[in-house]
Amino acid sequence: MRIAVDVLGGDYAPDEVLRGVATALRDDFTPEELLLVGPEEEIQSRLKAEGVAVPNILHTTEVIGSHEKPVEALRKKRNSSISLCVGAVKEGAAGGLISFGNTGAAVAASSIGLGMLPGIRRPGIAVVFEWASGKVVLLDAGANPEPKSSHLFHYGVMGTAYCRDMFGMESPRIGLLNIGGEAGKGHSTVREAHDLLESSSLNFVGNLEGQDLFKGSTEVLVTDGFVGNMLLKVVEGFMEYLLHGMADAVSDSDSSNSMLATFKQLVGATDFAEVGGATLLGVNGVVLIGHGRSKASAVAPALRNVRKDLRTGVNAHITEILNAQEGSAAEA
Amino acid sequence: MRIAVDVLGGDYAPDEVLRGVATALRDDFTPEELLLVGPEEEIQSRLKAEGVAVPNILHTTEVIGSHEKPVEALRKKRNSSISLCVGAVKEGAAGGLISFGNTGAAVAASSIGLGMLPGIRRPGIAVVFEWASGKVVLLDAGANPEPKSSHLFHYGVMGTAYCRDMFGMESPRIGLLNIGGEAGKGHSTVREAHDLLESSSLNFVGNLEGQDLFKGSTEVLVTDGFVGNMLLKVVEGFMEYLLHGMADAVSDSDSSNSMLATFKQLVGATDFAEVGGATLLGVNGVVLIGHGRSKASAVAPALRNVRKDLRTGVNAHITEILNAQEGSAAEA
Repeated sequence: MRIAVDVLGGDYAPDEVLRGVATALRDDFTPEELLLVGPEEEIQSRLKAEGVAVPNILHTTEVIGSHEKPVEALRKKRNSSISLCVGAVKEGAAGGLISFGNTGAAVAASSIGLGMLPGIRRPGIAVVFEWASGKVVLLDAGANPEPKSSHLFHYGVMGTAYCRDMFGMESPRIGLLNIGGEAGKGHSTVREAHDLLESSSLNFVGNLEGQDLFKGSTEVLVTDGFVGNMLLKVVEGFMEYLLHGMADAVSDSDSSNSMLATFKQLVGATDFAEVGGATLLGVNGVVLIGHGRSKASAVAPALRNVRKDLRTGVNAHITEILNAQEGSAAEA
Repeated sequence: MRIAVDVLGGDYAPDEVLRGVATALRDDFTPEELLLVGPEEEIQSRLKAEGVAVPNILHTTEVIGSHEKPVEALRKKRNSSISLCVGAVKEGAAGGLISFGNTGAAVAASSIGLGMLPGIRRPGIAVVFEWASGKVVLLDAGANPEPKSSHLFHYGVMGTAYCRDMFGMESPRIGLLNIGGEAGKGHSTVREAHDLLESSSLNFVGNLEGQDLFKGSTEVLVTDGFVGNMLLKVVEGFMEYLLHGMADAVSDSDSSNSMLATFKQLVGATDFAEVGGATLLGVNGVVLIGHGRSKASAVAPALRNVRKDLRTGVNAHITEILNAQEGSAAEA
């Protein structure tokens, strides 16, 4: 299946996106696998300079900037790169897409253009943290800031399918992010979500707190998009603060350099500008949203994620797991 | 003004609390300044062993455990140490209190027992982060998980008074934690709070995102208690994860030790089990809530915080600033 690439989205587009595409082509992608969406001449000349070429280009020069209001911008810019990427998936010209542009626009364009999976009402962004204590999928990281409890329950379903398909985990643990471990904690939405998850056949381990993100307590952490986005940005912000502070203090000695290397190892796999982005789950298609600050190195991993989602059929598995749930929870 | 000390609250109570009290007495507190609430004989014998004594003890052996449901536990345990501390403040036997016990119980007992300041509907927990980039007061860190927009506005008022009195900042900047910098971002409560703050005379700098916690972008970060508590625990959890990971890797060389010291310096002032806890603002009294894992070293700083709140009259200043606001925002 072909993958559409939003060449114009992102802080360093199109340069870094195209450099990343060239790397992917030199590594393990064939030109036939890609559909590049952006300014045709520029794409061709830049790829030529990199010594590669892609036959399928969908020409456009329109792009939705990172600070534009998503829905409004999508209405005005009918030929924006993200709209054309979504259109290509909708029409079957591509199986999935990657974009490093305006997240809200990618979520809105995908939700409206592709529609939702059967039984799913709202999409969620799945971000993967990789700590020494193991992988944790945080879901939702910002697609849906005011979810209902049923949406949170669906995130548990999506997270289960995603962990199985992407990481081969048979029965990933699902935790619900809350401000206390006991049932009955938090506001009404999370309390209801707790009950829906508990009465399901998912491997639900109960409420978890913020510190559990780092402890290997769970493989999936379910939360609303407001909290999830905040948490993601706090972790990123803290990491940057510490990295700068330590880099400033580093001497040239081998051991302080190795200390800094240790630190980078502890946090490194969570540098989202380098690791390929987050998957938008719940929409009827495969959509990968990269960090706006992504450089070329993020492109090939993003493409590989989409390829894996397509090959494993994560969307079909979300539907299967949802259908396997008892009436009340599935229909909530 | 005397300060009531909940001797029984906290994971390491009463031992560490009493050791901390002894330190405070050796440092800069007089015995007359303290009212110890807990088991009288044990308190006396332990303090004697430390070579100090306190004349004012309010005897009780009842305590609300960290996992008890606050309101229920308060109803059952009329003589719990936190209830008696609040009672002492209410009756004027003490001007303020410190507790390292069940946070929910301290919030509920104080709100009900002391009542709220005029015009304030809900209390908020103010936690102070200290980064290389400056101090940030996060408010609310967990007292009020489902606030209305007017409560968030009041947190801006409280944060302003607190920063003025505690840190001598004349016009502290107030940021509203949101999932995007532009006005109109986030759910309806934060959008309304944005408008209330913007139309006030507070030094409101607009929406800020998670990463702004570390950047010196603001002195006060206003958020709901659900997000604030999550954020606090994520920062704590991340810090612990990194400290353990780096301590494991440290060699005995001077430079790797100095690297670890640099790291601790970057995060150190934010180890809440060591720095004296958080202030519950909005109630009609001075209440300091310490971290449950606090050791003795947290006690004297906590007592000093209460003393400073009492001396500066932060509560009177909250009322003044609130009264100075235009009608709509103040009465929202």
